[in-house]
Amino acid sequence: MVSTISPNSTIINVAAICGSLRKASYNRGLIRSAIEITNQSIPNMSINYIDISPLPMLNTDLETNGTYPQPVTTFRNQIQQADCFLFASPEYNYSVTAPLKNAIDWASRPPNVWADKAAAIVSAGGGFGGGRSQYVLRQSGVYLDLHFINKPEFFVNAFELPAKFDEDGDLIDEQAKERLKKVLLALKAFTLRLRDE
Amino acid sequence: MVSTISPNSTIINVAAICGSLRKASYNRGLIRSAIEITNQSIPNMSINYIDISPLPMLNTDLETNGTYPQPVTTFRNQIQQADCFLFASPEYNYSVTAPLKNAIDWASRPPNVWADKAAAIVSAGGGFGGGRSQYVLRQSGVYLDLHFINKPEFFVNAFELPAKFDEDGDLIDEQAKERLKKVLLALKAFTLRLRDE
Amino acid sequence: MVSTISPNSTIINVAAICGSLRKASYNRGLIRSAIEITNQSIPNMSINYIDISPLPMLNTDLETNGTYPQPVTTFRNQIQQADCFLFASPEYNYSVTAPLKNAIDWASRPPNVWADKAAAIVSAGGGFGGGRSQYVLRQSGVYLDLHFINKPEFFVNAFELPAKFDEDGDLIDEQAKERLKKVLLALKAFTLRLRDE
Amino acid sequence: MVSTISPNSTIINVAAICGSLRKASYNRGLIRSAIEITNQSIPNMSINYIDISPLPMLNTDLETNGTYPQPVTTFRNQIQQADCFLFASPEYNYSVTAPLKNAIDWASRPPNVWADKAAAIVSAGGGFGGGRSQYVLRQSGVYLDLHFINKPEFFVNAFELPAKFDEDGDLIDEQAKERLKKVLLALKAFTLRLRDE
Repeated sequence: MVSTISPNSTIINVAAICGSLRKASYNRGLIRSAIEITNQSIPNMSINYIDISPLPMLNTDLETNGTYPQPVTTFRNQIQQADCFLFASPEYNYSVTAPLKNAIDWASRPPNVWADKAAAIVSAGGGFGGGRSQYVLRQSGVYLDLHFINKPEFFVNAFELPAKFDEDGDLIDEQAKERLKKVLLALKAFTLRLRDE
Repeated sequence: MVSTISPNSTIINVAAICGSLRKASYNRGLIRSAIEITNQSIPNMSINYIDISPLPMLNTDLETNGTYPQPVTTFRNQIQQADCFLFASPEYNYSVTAPLKNAIDWASRPPNVWADKAAAIVSAGGGFGGGRSQYVLRQSGVYLDLHFINKPEFFVNAFELPAKFDEDGDLIDEQAKERLKKVLLALKAFTLRLRDE
Repeated sequence: MVSTISPNSTIINVAAICGSLRKASYNRGLIRSAIEITNQSIPNMSINYIDISPLPMLNTDLETNGTYPQPVTTFRNQIQQADCFLFASPEYNYSVTAPLKNAIDWASRPPNVWADKAAAIVSAGGGFGGGRSQYVLRQSGVYLDLHFINKPEFFVNAFELPAKFDEDGDLIDEQAKERLKKVLLALKAFTLRLRDE
Repeated sequence: MVSTISPNSTIINVAAICGSLRKASYNRGLIRSAIEITNQSIPNMSINYIDISPLPMLNTDLETNGTYPQPVTTFRNQIQQADCFLFASPEYNYSVTAPLKNAIDWASRPPNVWADKAAAIVSAGGGFGGGRSQYVLRQSGVYLDLHFINKPEFFVNAFELPAKFDEDGDLIDEQAKERLKKVLLALKAFTLRLRDE
């Protein structure tokens, strides 16, 4: 269990992944908002949005002579280089989406590049605001060896009035932005806390 | 909650889905074995293997004017026409695979063609023999309105000696075959029990 | 898998269990409301509230010569005689309560008297309205061989305005009562559907 | 999120809790073995077994004027003083036991004395060796703000030959003892890693 963060690094690099491929996805809107909040008010942290749409559907027959398809290699490198993770996880049928599970599974192939890093989850949706997907993702995290922050949890009901998102899928609710900022601060603090001295 | 089985149908049609796309998948081997067992010794039931590999990754932007991409429409029709389901569900990272979740999600788009039918799950794998994936799938089943049989559950540890599968991924363990037959009989019985008079 | 309902029985007997021992429990209020709704408008069904507070904490050392402590025997008989179950399940620490799990475990001791019967869950609470506890209970249901209705699910946020409960813990929200009635009708229908001919 | 471990403490104090009240419980045997292993070969760590049998069944009506029943206060103090936790969690009906959930819930009452500490889970049982209970416990841990180690996980099938336990419920399998030691070392390392500087 060796932290991947160099003791001398001054910036915490967050890789952000959205479980929906929809253009107008509210969950991708949460990542845009997280990037904006971080740039404006969280020093020494930087969020890098990782596009998972180029990944082929997982099939280990695509691994030939120990190499992965090019989009998988690119993705795995991005995960490897991150210090921690921000998952925007919509809930489809009471679980995580297929594109998100697909990305998780590709990066878990040997060597598992998620291992021993901190992570946080945010969700937007109806009902529980995506909540059920988060506990399924946390269960995967046990095997992946991800260290999720426990608090605060972040769910936003995208369909309750007043509107939380605008037409472009951007988060416009100030209270939700404040809660999102607290998630990011907790992720930063937990990443630093897990850093080996 | 109207059963989709016509009172006059004499054959129970099972749609079987494998969560792995690998050619040598043990889980697909379980489906081949289930088909053989059914043909040999379970009257009035027929298992139809449904290939999920042609499905695109779920993205609801691909739905245009209320229509689905052609492979999705074909798949949805196959699910619609089935009386019940047999899932062969490998466990990847303590949950269901991306291809399986993808198939589930496409067929759940309106109208949800899984609704109100019986289902069973079988798994092969290391550790718990795929077991953790089954409870995640059952949780999705609540939203999908699937009625899973409770017993017997079927997990087979594919890596314990003596070998349970041969080189082609075919189930060769007689005890496991007996247990698999009991799953199929329970699925048949539950499908009939849920049938409206 | 033989239904325990005699073909000639004209009344469906529901055993209702509340996971909270608090006097003012909102979840017990849901059961009182369910009884009232049933008496007023659901023919051929009767709900019997089962008090689980006399049960000792589960310890199988208390089973001597194959007999159970008296309160356990009384409880097990009540479960045995019911045709189906209504659980009012509060969420404590993202799971079911200890008193509810205790009751479940005592009645699962051999012979498991829950087996092969229909069940429904209702919850009141903050946040997801008790929702997380329901999926944990459903997972126990696989082993218990309970057949839970899938829809409608019932969660009520007890702390959102306007007030859903009065000072005595009685449900006063008409919309919630309508939803609760739909749960009861679905439970009745599923119980009848599972009944053997 | 302030660690409760004083920077000057030289001994890590582990509170160990067993979810079974049975005298011959294999899970309590795992705790005895963990204590022996720690005393013999893990410096600067000490395991304190906490008896949860005196706790009354959770009922918040028992809290009067902000005070808890005496056994609850005693238990809460023991949890408060620990640096981290070892849960021996049997699986009853695919979840944690009632006595364990009861202990968890009492110590979570305000102020939650589990908060922000490291924890590990071990289980013995049939089937998955108690495994399903561990993921339910981990879900509670999100709300409790426990930081569970991810690896290694520890499940032991108590009924497979050769015998893993002797007649007194003591662990006698050397391989299992080695695995148990690795859990304890990982718990120690994670506790130290989470310690604030």
